[in-house]
Amino acid sequence: MRTTIDLNCDMGESFGVYKLGYDDEVIKLISSVNVACGFHGGDPNIMDHTVEMAKKYGVGIGAHPGFQDLIGFGRRNVDISRKDLMNLIIYQIGALDIFCQKHGVSLRHVKPHGNMNNMADSDKEMATNIVDAVLAVRKDLPVLVKPNSQLHQVAAEKGLPFILELFADRAYNNDVSLVSRKYEGAVISDPDEVANRVIKMVMEQKVTTINGDEITIEGDSICVHGDTPTALEMIKTIKEKLESMNIKIAPFSV
Amino acid sequence: MRTTIDLNCDMGESFGVYKLGYDDEVIKLISSVNVACGFHGGDPNIMDHTVEMAKKYGVGIGAHPGFQDLIGFGRRNVDISRKDLMNLIIYQIGALDIFCQKHGVSLRHVKPHGNMNNMADSDKEMATNIVDAVLAVRKDLPVLVKPNSQLHQVAAEKGLPFILELFADRAYNNDVSLVSRKYEGAVISDPDEVANRVIKMVMEQKVTTINGDEITIEGDSICVHGDTPTALEMIKTIKEKLESMNIKIAPFSV
Amino acid sequence: MRTTIDLNCDMGESFGVYKLGYDDEVIKLISSVNVACGFHGGDPNIMDHTVEMAKKYGVGIGAHPGFQDLIGFGRRNVDISRKDLMNLIIYQIGALDIFCQKHGVSLRHVKPHGNMNNMADSDKEMATNIVDAVLAVRKDLPVLVKPNSQLHQVAAEKGLPFILELFADRAYNNDVSLVSRKYEGAVISDPDEVANRVIKMVMEQKVTTINGDEITIEGDSICVHGDTPTALEMIKTIKEKLESMNIKIAPFSV
Amino acid sequence: MRTTIDLNCDMGESFGVYKLGYDDEVIKLISSVNVACGFHGGDPNIMDHTVEMAKKYGVGIGAHPGFQDLIGFGRRNVDISRKDLMNLIIYQIGALDIFCQKHGVSLRHVKPHGNMNNMADSDKEMATNIVDAVLAVRKDLPVLVKPNSQLHQVAAEKGLPFILELFADRAYNNDVSLVSRKYEGAVISDPDEVANRVIKMVMEQKVTTINGDEITIEGDSICVHGDTPTALEMIKTIKEKLESMNIKIAPFSV
Repeated sequence: MRTTIDLNCDMGESFGVYKLGYDDEVIKLISSVNVACGFHGGDPNIMDHTVEMAKKYGVGIGAHPGFQDLIGFGRRNVDISRKDLMNLIIYQIGALDIFCQKHGVSLRHVKPHGNMNNMADSDKEMATNIVDAVLAVRKDLPVLVKPNSQLHQVAAEKGLPFILELFADRAYNNDVSLVSRKYEGAVISDPDEVANRVIKMVMEQKVTTINGDEITIEGDSICVHGDTPTALEMIKTIKEKLESMNIKIAPFSV
Repeated sequence: MRTTIDLNCDMGESFGVYKLGYDDEVIKLISSVNVACGFHGGDPNIMDHTVEMAKKYGVGIGAHPGFQDLIGFGRRNVDISRKDLMNLIIYQIGALDIFCQKHGVSLRHVKPHGNMNNMADSDKEMATNIVDAVLAVRKDLPVLVKPNSQLHQVAAEKGLPFILELFADRAYNNDVSLVSRKYEGAVISDPDEVANRVIKMVMEQKVTTINGDEITIEGDSICVHGDTPTALEMIKTIKEKLESMNIKIAPFSV
Repeated sequence: MRTTIDLNCDMGESFGVYKLGYDDEVIKLISSVNVACGFHGGDPNIMDHTVEMAKKYGVGIGAHPGFQDLIGFGRRNVDISRKDLMNLIIYQIGALDIFCQKHGVSLRHVKPHGNMNNMADSDKEMATNIVDAVLAVRKDLPVLVKPNSQLHQVAAEKGLPFILELFADRAYNNDVSLVSRKYEGAVISDPDEVANRVIKMVMEQKVTTINGDEITIEGDSICVHGDTPTALEMIKTIKEKLESMNIKIAPFSV
Repeated sequence: MRTTIDLNCDMGESFGVYKLGYDDEVIKLISSVNVACGFHGGDPNIMDHTVEMAKKYGVGIGAHPGFQDLIGFGRRNVDISRKDLMNLIIYQIGALDIFCQKHGVSLRHVKPHGNMNNMADSDKEMATNIVDAVLAVRKDLPVLVKPNSQLHQVAAEKGLPFILELFADRAYNNDVSLVSRKYEGAVISDPDEVANRVIKMVMEQKVTTINGDEITIEGDSICVHGDTPTALEMIKTIKEKLESMNIKIAPFSV
């Protein structure tokens, strides 16, 4: 039976004077961090700071490349060419990796940000371009993927290591896809309910879908959000409940 | 006596649809390239392309970090803090380095772009921040420096390898500094005169200054420009004249 | 019978040191200019210069707002919200208008750039947002529209003045839409053929479609391109041929 | 004796998802707002929103143009050319003005942001370029100036209307210049002390300088900050104290 689980969180998304998220608190509660690389958010200073903090707290570091769309925070679909997308991702991985080198830690994973990730749920070409970008520079760097997504399938086909990622506060459809945020009930806001769902996903590999059915779900990393005081509370609740079940928060194995 | 000399040129400064320079021609004539890293110019696609070309033609690759000032092309002074400057440089080195990794070549040097470089001629703090940035991530990565500049002196003091860089088409003052572009005669435009000056610098370690005096000048790399058809002709003339003297164009040794 | 026709051309798309197009030549040959406003291309200096030239040569000035995507030059689809799109367009109109005020000329039209325009061919919501943006600040400012496009229809419905725009060098489908650039024959490159098509469109309101059928087509402005030496030659050919038929190049009436 | 005073505050400096300041609270307490125009901060959406709010609360609207330096928030010196600076300012004034037009209110003033303003304290060329930019498009638009600054003197010489601006929480030197933030005591943080200084400046045209001397100081607008909860409290204290002295907060007269 599982004795550890990875909690991952997007972080380092501040930009210049603009601060985003409760990074300095959240970093103490999680085990993997997805670090923005200066395109949808983040800048060289915050990247340096985030890597330094991650090292201090033993948190696994991942690159979190996004579209070159600061004003839209990478949360808008862009019809980007294969070449543009691949080089965009490679660039961002390199930019983060050197801060890892500076601090003497390893880059452990990559997770596409926002709509780059969402588009790769169902768009095979997009998923292929993301996987090929990583393969072009780091054949052993795992990518975080949603179960059954195109990104998952393409990574599996092409032999790029992947980590199945589950979402703590999102409702699931019966096919293990996330319920779109357009629909009511897509996001679960009660900390206890979220924590209980996480426990069930981790201990029993089960989740109750939006239709009320119980399905099997597998994952090695749980995504949590840390950009609001409420979100911070939710992480704390999840962590406490997991630890009370003797599940330790720790980076995924590779 | 010297049998080889390095010719370096700034390159990869295009951005999206905007094209700059005669890169595809110039790359065949030089031995080291300073590649823009996406801040003052350049983008992930052109970086990938430039590294690929450099590999093809056996040209040594250097990072050419600039201020985050695309509209000013990095050619304006900015009073940037130590932290901002260091992380800006580190980020850009990492971004270029991963394209070198992708193509299986090594990053061989770094050269600050435009006014970041010019400010470091006389501003010791700026020079220190540049040197410390490189030392923080690549203790063995040589920096191109103007003889007697603060950047030269600080690199020497701190043990960062450096390559002395001379300018083919710029007039010198008696103290080996460049004549400011504000003054007449600062830039020499006749290809033959420029080529002859280069020969003299390379063969005799001498240059005639703006005052008419002949001074000793040493350098292992000559900077040429490739952004106009005339500049391209000038490089060809320099190369031919050097080769006619049995001086081979080859990357500097490290 | 028609005695004048408007030739419009996108212009002012340079950015900082990056030059695009043969603006200083093209401006003398056309009668309306669509001026980039600093988002997909253009900057305050080139806007000022373009308006100054347009005034000098009696060319009608239009705002040419684009997506905030300099690296993609506004040529990628973005799923932009109504609020974002409206304010983006309003902002760019204001930014150009003040340079018109500075030079004592009037802003005469607006034409969405690149994929903002293309998306509004068939996307009614996008077309609505564009029209509403213009109506929010300039109820009398005509928008250039492709015949039968959603942008055309929405402008007509909402009472925003519009000018029907035809394309000199693009093939048409039978429903008066442009043949996608994905298909062979979409772009016509022979200057004489293009000029003859323009003559026929202007004199007879007819065009031969990609299928070989002759259809009726109406328009008050012909779009030409000026970003290559060949394009420049094409404009000259069109202008000469039109003038030889006693058709004068002049701004559209409003 | 004075019965009203203007309180001005920088606002609308958010950018995309990045929020800055307590705009929705501060706007109710002040009488003039300096609205960021999308270069050092701000974006079209926040500009629209800020103008809408200012109209709702009867607050006078000013353009707050800054350097094109989002990552530095316009708080770094840039050696910008006359042409670049003038067109940069003109562009930003136009961009804000159209949102004023949209909401049916007037643009009432302009105030350079951050280091563009600071540089114009002592740099006559910079001050001249700013004044000439405004004169090129709005001969009657007052500029907020620090007493005795170069910006003040150049505006006076060239006949551009100006409003003398005092700072609520900053220490003054004997020559009426602000004490540099580098020195201890430059910023006064106690709300009551600040409010009392404001009262004295408004009622008696006096301020006690950092040296302990009492000097005469005149101004028609007091600058307050609203970017922290503490700053918000300070504005409330200033407002209450002024109103208790029967001084009403109202936009400056023009």
